[in-house]
Amino acid sequence: MAENKNQDLKNLGEFGLIDLLTKNIEIKNSSTKMGVGDDAAVLDYKNKQVVVTTDLLLQGIHFDLVYTPLKHLGYKAVMVNLSDVFAMNATPKQITVSIGVSSKMNTVALETLYEGIKLACDKHGVDLVGGDTSSSLTGLTISITAIGEGDENDIVYRKGAKPNDLICVSGDLGGAYMGLQLLEREKRVHEGNAKVQPDLSGYDYILERQLKPEARGDVIAFLKEIGVKPTSMIDISDGLSSEIKHICKNSGTGCRIYENKIPIDHTTSLMAEEINMNPTVAALNGGEDYELLFTISMDDYEKFSKETDLKIYTIGHITEESKGCYLVTNADQEIELQAQGWNALTGNNEQ
Amino acid sequence: MAENKNQDLKNLGEFGLIDLLTKNIEIKNSSTKMGVGDDAAVLDYKNKQVVVTTDLLLQGIHFDLVYTPLKHLGYKAVMVNLSDVFAMNATPKQITVSIGVSSKMNTVALETLYEGIKLACDKHGVDLVGGDTSSSLTGLTISITAIGEGDENDIVYRKGAKPNDLICVSGDLGGAYMGLQLLEREKRVHEGNAKVQPDLSGYDYILERQLKPEARGDVIAFLKEIGVKPTSMIDISDGLSSEIKHICKNSGTGCRIYENKIPIDHTTSLMAEEINMNPTVAALNGGEDYELLFTISMDDYEKFSKETDLKIYTIGHITEESKGCYLVTNADQEIELQAQGWNALTGNNEQ
Repeated sequence: MAENKNQDLKNLGEFGLIDLLTKNIEIKNSSTKMGVGDDAAVLDYKNKQVVVTTDLLLQGIHFDLVYTPLKHLGYKAVMVNLSDVFAMNATPKQITVSIGVSSKMNTVALETLYEGIKLACDKHGVDLVGGDTSSSLTGLTISITAIGEGDENDIVYRKGAKPNDLICVSGDLGGAYMGLQLLEREKRVHEGNAKVQPDLSGYDYILERQLKPEARGDVIAFLKEIGVKPTSMIDISDGLSSEIKHICKNSGTGCRIYENKIPIDHTTSLMAEEINMNPTVAALNGGEDYELLFTISMDDYEKFSKETDLKIYTIGHITEESKGCYLVTNADQEIELQAQGWNALTGNNEQ
Repeated sequence: MAENKNQDLKNLGEFGLIDLLTKNIEIKNSSTKMGVGDDAAVLDYKNKQVVVTTDLLLQGIHFDLVYTPLKHLGYKAVMVNLSDVFAMNATPKQITVSIGVSSKMNTVALETLYEGIKLACDKHGVDLVGGDTSSSLTGLTISITAIGEGDENDIVYRKGAKPNDLICVSGDLGGAYMGLQLLEREKRVHEGNAKVQPDLSGYDYILERQLKPEARGDVIAFLKEIGVKPTSMIDISDGLSSEIKHICKNSGTGCRIYENKIPIDHTTSLMAEEINMNPTVAALNGGEDYELLFTISMDDYEKFSKETDLKIYTIGHITEESKGCYLVTNADQEIELQAQGWNALTGNNEQ
């Protein structure tokens, strides 16, 4: 189109904006009978079970547009929802996206946000089937609901862990939190002196962990490939400590996590050292890593010998409930795990 | 519990708040396999099709807490979503509720909001199966997704209307908009002189239309009872004019709506007169009435002779597309219908 792409939102109107943002959407799944364009989407799952999850992302609480590129934000907003679907051992198939936008935001910015949303959908074969678009008197609001499918016998809940089960995690932890600390520090420096450019060199890994997390569909596919159904599973959005406690509470068990087994990337450790923080604390309470935390029966352990590029770490084991939930430190001390986590209500990631 | 019920949100934490708000939730539907308490809800629809719809409600855009009781707000937030499910000729079964709350709001206020949410769920046998809870730096944000089921052959889309089909509406129009005008006027009066109490007497009906709309599940049940499947259907959230144009656009047809057939309550007319507005304009463009607008084949017309307390009005008919979409006025003039509607992007309900 030759006309000015940067159209004014008010002139475009809600229906015009929806048309603009959804014009290139192609339906990829046979379960999507009707996507955008009616009162509701229509889905057909035949004999599968349906999983539904939703996340609300608010500007200033969950993201800071000063250092969050809109394309990354759209991508991440989808990924955090798909991560919840994978954590049920299910396959995401559809999402709905609702956005509230301030009049300061233009259509090019919104199209950039949707580029990220579509990229995440394409990566996992997910259809965008509906949503809602509104103006916002304040910041950007993004609400995404993800829908997926799984066979009844395949769905994995938080409950189901048994004593002696092994506790596994699909990747290193604490990186997303350290990426956030770095971005917040450089933002403060930049605000103090606008001529100073942020120094982010050498920290690509933790920045990507914070800004562009990946939902671990590859891990779910690998577990299926080797014929392992976890006894329980959760995704790590609030920190290892909080998540393992959810599994233990729901399963009626305790656990032992070994500090020296917790996978931490060297970039995470470097950044933690810079800000005088114990990287284990970042792994336990940092959150937003979006790795999968799951338990497996000891009998399934040998199945993991199959060659793979994936790194799956065994970090502890499940115990009887009476034994409590403890971290065994490098100094061989037992410290009770606290579900401090990332608390969206106190907004402590913004401190 | 003897302790102070009005707990501070920050002390309660996200998980504590979720527990508080979802503690009395009972699962009512066999399709709900897992509700609140895991990464995602798990649903089982067997051979039914699944419909999914979502709405985002933002303080200052969609509601004004100055005159909107929180219990009504929760009720309405659910009803507007259920209305979309009914508009597919489907039955709502589950909702997820995400809220962003400012620290100014206390737990008693949130529990009141959830009372309204649960009341609406109970009224239609719907399960609350998940959601997300966050702090908000600004106003209250409510995002609801509703999920329902229907037989593949029963689902009704916006497309499907045929020339000569009759256009029906399930109740009177323009009332919700007039209720809003009244509330806004009294708010202005009250702001001008805080000693003046709002004068809302005699206007209960339009206030209820605005503050406590009802999704028309009773109409869907009646249509099933008399064996009528509409050829197309939509719910009236943006005004009659906008909605009938959606049906015509999706069906590739035109229409004639007769001004003297449009049902308008006398309270709506009275209020319109007070503010020098044509009540037909309120019906056409006011929005938020949440009545069902549907088309039926002429062959089905006689089935509506069955006795019922429901009022279903025939307001026009579908034409060939080339005839366009027109209102036939009381003066027998034809005026082209404009999809002006209620525009959440320009927030014109706030003017």
